[in-house]
Formats: sequence, C-alpha cells, structure tokens
Amino acid sequence: LEATMKSVPSDVPVILDAKRGDIGSTATAYAKAAFEVWGADSVTLNAYMGGDTVEPFLAYEDRGVFILTRTSNPGGRDFEELMVANSTGQGGASGDRTRPLYEHVTERAVEWNTRGNIGLVVGATAPEELQRVRAIATDMPILIPGIGTQGGNLEASIRYGMNANGLGAIVSSSRGIIFASKGPDFAEAARAATEKIRSEINVEREKLGFRWPS
Amino acid sequence: LEATMKSVPSDVPVILDAKRGDIGSTATAYAKAAFEVWGADSVTLNAYMGGDTVEPFLAYEDRGVFILTRTSNPGGRDFEELMVANSTGQGGASGDRTRPLYEHVTERAVEWNTRGNIGLVVGATAPEELQRVRAIATDMPILIPGIGTQGGNLEASIRYGMNANGLGAIVSSSRGIIFASKGPDFAEAARAATEKIRSEINVEREKLGFRWPS
Repeated sequence: LEATMKSVPSDVPVILDAKRGDIGSTATAYAKAAFEVWGADSVTLNAYMGGDTVEPFLAYEDRGVFILTRTSNPGGRDFEELMVANSTGQGGASGDRTRPLYEHVTERAVEWNTRGNIGLVVGATAPEELQRVRAIATDMPILIPGIGTQGGNLEASIRYGMNANGLGAIVSSSRGIIFASKGPDFAEAARAATEKIRSEINVEREKLGFRWPS
Repeated sequence: LEATMKSVPSDVPVILDAKRGDIGSTATAYAKAAFEVWGADSVTLNAYMGGDTVEPFLAYEDRGVFILTRTSNPGGRDFEELMVANSTGQGGASGDRTRPLYEHVTERAVEWNTRGNIGLVVGATAPEELQRVRAIATDMPILIPGIGTQGGNLEASIRYGMNANGLGAIVSSSRGIIFASKGPDFAEAARAATEKIRSEINVEREKLGFRWPS
C-alpha cells in the first residue's frame, strides 16, 4: 500500500477503500492514519455503528468520506434492504415513511453533510437502488464499484449515478484492471482496460447529452 | 501490533478487534491476514454488508468471529436500534415481529452459526439490549466492551451477559487497562487494573450463585 500510494501522482485523488467503522477514539486514530499517515484524499466508511464513528473523518474538511449504503455484493440484500420504520423520532424529509435501511443511511448522510465532504457508495449491481439514492442525495459524489468482475451494469450506473449536471458518478473497477493480465504485459493490459472503461463511460454520458469540454 | 501479538503467551486467546466487513474476495484476504498472518484466534466483524462478508471467516472452523450487534458508543442508537419490519421473506424464530436492527443481526448470526464459531459484540453501556441479545443467542459468547472509560455497567454486563451456566460473557476493558498509568509504573498499574476488574467480575458472578472450581 505504501509503495502504491507513493507512486500515485499528486494530482490524482486517492480513495482508500478501508471501510472503517469504530468508536470515536478509534475513529479519530483511523482518520489520522488515513489522511495524515497514508495521505489519502478520501476513505470509505461503514456507518453501522452510527454518527460518532463518522464525525472524526468529517473534521478533516479538505478530505472526504464515502459511506456505504447499498453495496455491490450479494449479501448487500441481507441487512441493507431491510425495511425500516421511522420510530426513533429522527425526522428528515421523508417523515414517517417506511423505507429500506440503505435509504435511511443515505438520509442521515445528507443530514451529516454540513461540511460538504460526504459521498456515498452504491454498487453497480443495484441500479434501482442507485436511482433511489441519487434522488435523495442529489449532489453528493457516488462511488460505484462492481462493473467489472462483479458484473454490474455500466449503462445504468451512469444513467442513475450522475447528478443533474452529468457529474458525481465515480465508476470504479478494481480487479478488472489490476488483473487484466498476470503476464509480462501487466502494465499495458491494465492501461488498456482502464481506457476501455473510460471510453465506455463517456459513450454513455454522450448518449445522455453530456460531453466534456474539448 | 506484531510485537504485541508475539508477546502474548500461546495459551491466551487473542480477539483482534478489527471490525472487518468487505465483499467476499476481500473478506477472504482479511480472514487469511487475521488468522494466518497475525495468528489471531478470533476477529470482530461488522456485518452491515451481509452474510457473504462473514462466511470467509467462518470457514476457519478452529477460529471465531464476534459480530457487532448493539455497540457501546453513543452512535449505537443511530442505526442499530432502528425498528426493522420483517418484509424480506427471511423467516426465523421471531416470524414477522418488528424488532430493532441489532436483534435482526443477532437472529441471522444464530442462523449462520452452523459451525459453532460465532460470537456477538454488545456494549456494556446497553444492558437492556444485552439482555435481549442473550435471550436470542442463548449460548453464544458475547464480547462486552465499554465498562471502563466508556462508563458501562459491570454488574448488568455479568447478570445479562452470562449464559445459563454462568459462562459466555467476555467483559473487556481496553483504555482502562492500557492507560491505567502513563508513568514508569505502567506495567504494575495495568496489572492492578486488570486484577481489579477480574475480582469485580467474580464478585458479581458469585452474587448470582456461580463460582469457579477451586
């Protein structure tokens, strides 16, 4: 990890997919490790344990977090899609509506986002859920893993993941790129896989009327 | 961590409080790291992402996991106590009863425990919730943090955390022991704090009619 981090050019943002989630004192130490020791620009968080496990990361106002909502793995259905009754006295825009846990997490993330440094994680394997998360978190960056090895849907990830300005959908591929080749052409194969995905993303954006400035 | 792990005598079980929770392929690597590289006997897990994030750890049948249910921190109320409707078609002993998320996690943990190597984490700061978890998971080991710096209730932790045989409640203290002194008497103070807690635990057990064989 140290060698990889050092090899990343300073103008390339790094999302440390560490899925941290611990009590405040430990979260403070994990935030320091992620942002000060490793020098990551953002880190993924598991918020099951609640707001005080997230807050120490948010205190780094020039860094960001991505909170897990509906993840890309098959088990993402086990708890994240459980229907939650709003019986805790916590208000929010949706009032007393019963909704899946991942939507409730999304709503709380929106409430916590007073510094504008929270993003969300939604799997590319769950396009309907992605659409619902984007409807709640209209402007947050959404990290969308799962398009490669996990079989997620790239077209739907762009369509439902982008905000109204055609931005904010961060489609990631990990194994599809780093395991593109295990042979001596590793670097070339990884680059080719990356460029292929970039091209596919841009094709989908253009279908929806968005182009990068030339 | 490496130096600490090496200094632990081989007959002392080590619980690695790593709060892991990631997709299957990553969970497999984390399990290998925890059990084979670090040599831990068990590891704490965050099951928000579902069953496939837990399974790779359970495959080590001579090792154990402790799944977070109702944690000791203030934010433990934010999501863990949300009322969940059983609308996913998942059955279980409690049928369609609406119940807090931490109870639902406990029920799933009981279902997953086919190899007998799952335990649970419940904070000493949440004695009522501990009682409810013990009622569902009658025989599982329960790791109970929070009696020291966090202000949890030791008496209730023993009363509600033990199983019917007076066993299965693992009351832990971290900062209360390792920060008992920051001076040159560090080792003696840490030992004294540990022995004090052990004595208090045994007093509470004896009040309830349980004694260790002499």
